[in-house]
Amino acid sequence: MAAKRLGQFTVQLSSPRIVGAFTLMGPREGAGPLGRYFDAIVDDYMWGEIQPEKAERKYLEHAARRALERAGLRETDVDYFIAGDLLNQIVSSTYSARSLGVPHLGIFAACATSALGLGLAAMLVDGGFARRVLVATASHYQAVERQYRYPIELNIQRKPTNQWTATGGAAAVVAAEGEGPRITQVTFGRVVDWGVKDANDMGSAMAPAAADTLLRHFSDTGTTPGDYDLILTGDLAKVGSKLFRVLAGRAGVTLGGKHMDGGASIYSPKQQPGAGASGAVCSAAAILGYVLKEMARGRYRKVLALPTGCLHSPTTWQQGESCPGVSHAIVLEGA
Amino acid sequence: MAAKRLGQFTVQLSSPRIVGAFTLMGPREGAGPLGRYFDAIVDDYMWGEIQPEKAERKYLEHAARRALERAGLRETDVDYFIAGDLLNQIVSSTYSARSLGVPHLGIFAACATSALGLGLAAMLVDGGFARRVLVATASHYQAVERQYRYPIELNIQRKPTNQWTATGGAAAVVAAEGEGPRITQVTFGRVVDWGVKDANDMGSAMAPAAADTLLRHFSDTGTTPGDYDLILTGDLAKVGSKLFRVLAGRAGVTLGGKHMDGGASIYSPKQQPGAGASGAVCSAAAILGYVLKEMARGRYRKVLALPTGCLHSPTTWQQGESCPGVSHAIVLEGA
Repeated sequence: MAAKRLGQFTVQLSSPRIVGAFTLMGPREGAGPLGRYFDAIVDDYMWGEIQPEKAERKYLEHAARRALERAGLRETDVDYFIAGDLLNQIVSSTYSARSLGVPHLGIFAACATSALGLGLAAMLVDGGFARRVLVATASHYQAVERQYRYPIELNIQRKPTNQWTATGGAAAVVAAEGEGPRITQVTFGRVVDWGVKDANDMGSAMAPAAADTLLRHFSDTGTTPGDYDLILTGDLAKVGSKLFRVLAGRAGVTLGGKHMDGGASIYSPKQQPGAGASGAVCSAAAILGYVLKEMARGRYRKVLALPTGCLHSPTTWQQGESCPGVSHAIVLEGA
Repeated sequence: MAAKRLGQFTVQLSSPRIVGAFTLMGPREGAGPLGRYFDAIVDDYMWGEIQPEKAERKYLEHAARRALERAGLRETDVDYFIAGDLLNQIVSSTYSARSLGVPHLGIFAACATSALGLGLAAMLVDGGFARRVLVATASHYQAVERQYRYPIELNIQRKPTNQWTATGGAAAVVAAEGEGPRITQVTFGRVVDWGVKDANDMGSAMAPAAADTLLRHFSDTGTTPGDYDLILTGDLAKVGSKLFRVLAGRAGVTLGGKHMDGGASIYSPKQQPGAGASGAVCSAAAILGYVLKEMARGRYRKVLALPTGCLHSPTTWQQGESCPGVSHAIVLEGA
């Protein structure tokens, strides 16, 4: 009865497309190597707000509204608003949903939110449950740092394995009709935990989940890295990416030049981001900014995107628990 | 292209059924008026744990495993585990997903989680994206109180409008094949905020969302209260239920004896729960405990369930914001 399943873990879709997207990033992100791929850069992190949580919400909501504009749509043209973020009770998403007025499906997959949202939206459209679905996420350096770690005003010394939470919002409209790259396959991830307890090394905690989803996706679809123009993980950053390639290699999968990581790409080493970027917007911006534009230019035709998320909370960390990771995969194909 | 939509906000389904369910509640809940409908009562809130967050997780995970047993299934027989809870970063759900090993879709709708989970599971099954989906949620009095308000050890005086977070876990398996009540319609809710800023009166904050979803559901389906044997809201509790009935009445909808609220039903006045119960397990237990068993007995044939959630966080409350509410609706029909 599960007609659209392919292998044990993957779903095959036919109709859904990304018909509009918008990435709206902070100044540090705009100054980085992917800056020219983002649709707008806000020159002020706080965007006129005095609380970073409200700034994060503004990034999310504005990205959502601009994605609708790009698709030539209004709020009433979309059936669902699927959104999630890193803040407790995903308040950036829910308060944006209040303003948008579209029925809201709240999701949480930490920094893998973009793939969970896009994958779910693609299924709801493909199954005839929605004409169009708006998907969004956001993160904010100051809001996330003070929730998960320390207020940035404390100026806590960072470690080389630390990642820098990216600031910005990213959104897309997934629809059955219109122009844009198709979402053709979805492989939702298992929660994988190899016992990493270092809150300053999230990349290593997430890499096993990324490898798990990658291998299950290849097994289900009978594909290899050669079938994709790009395999985009993230935000594993430098440390996690290295571990991910080792784990894939041990399973006989050589990624070679096909692999790129969102977290390792958003900042240049000169920007001193530690191991790289993180945050829910990190993978979202890499997919909806960089990948979509390079697909439109014809550089990539088929892309496997594997955003990753660390699923701990400050409470589980204080209680001495390790950090479970998850990675949700989607396949994007050009027209 | 959205073949399964009915009206502006509702989805019509044909195949999905709840083929197994389990409710596993705390001692106070077991001693309440609905106690005999719950599948198991644990006589210790902490269930052998010293941290209430770990006890909450235990309730969630055990309910999920027992629901699988009831359906005669193992973990590998379900394609997705859809779960959410009230704790920051929904850690009860994600850490349970780690243990279960089933691909995890993390959701957040506060105390409306049960309907978001069941509705989404029903769509994924109906659309052929999954054979079977496991859905679960949980809440724990001590864990939720100390996260949202104060540690219970402080013995803060309660107000009559306060609700008492229910302790327990509830889970269900939704499948295309098997025996059990069908999920025939889903109306996901908009986020509605009428400006309630009183953190001690969540019922009033959620009532407008419940009325909004109720009226949109009636409008889409052309039904009235007379078409249902039961309209179950919750957890609005006593104060919110009264406001909900007033709001429905103003729109010309008289609920009469058809209306019951999960939050107003789980505890007896003698248990001094303030306005009633709350917590993500509250509606879940009312649906998967009370409603399912009364449907099996033949008392109810068609039930409209409208769980409600308050989408604020302690941070938004400290920052002076009002509390947005949401209500997701599902229709259950007996065989």
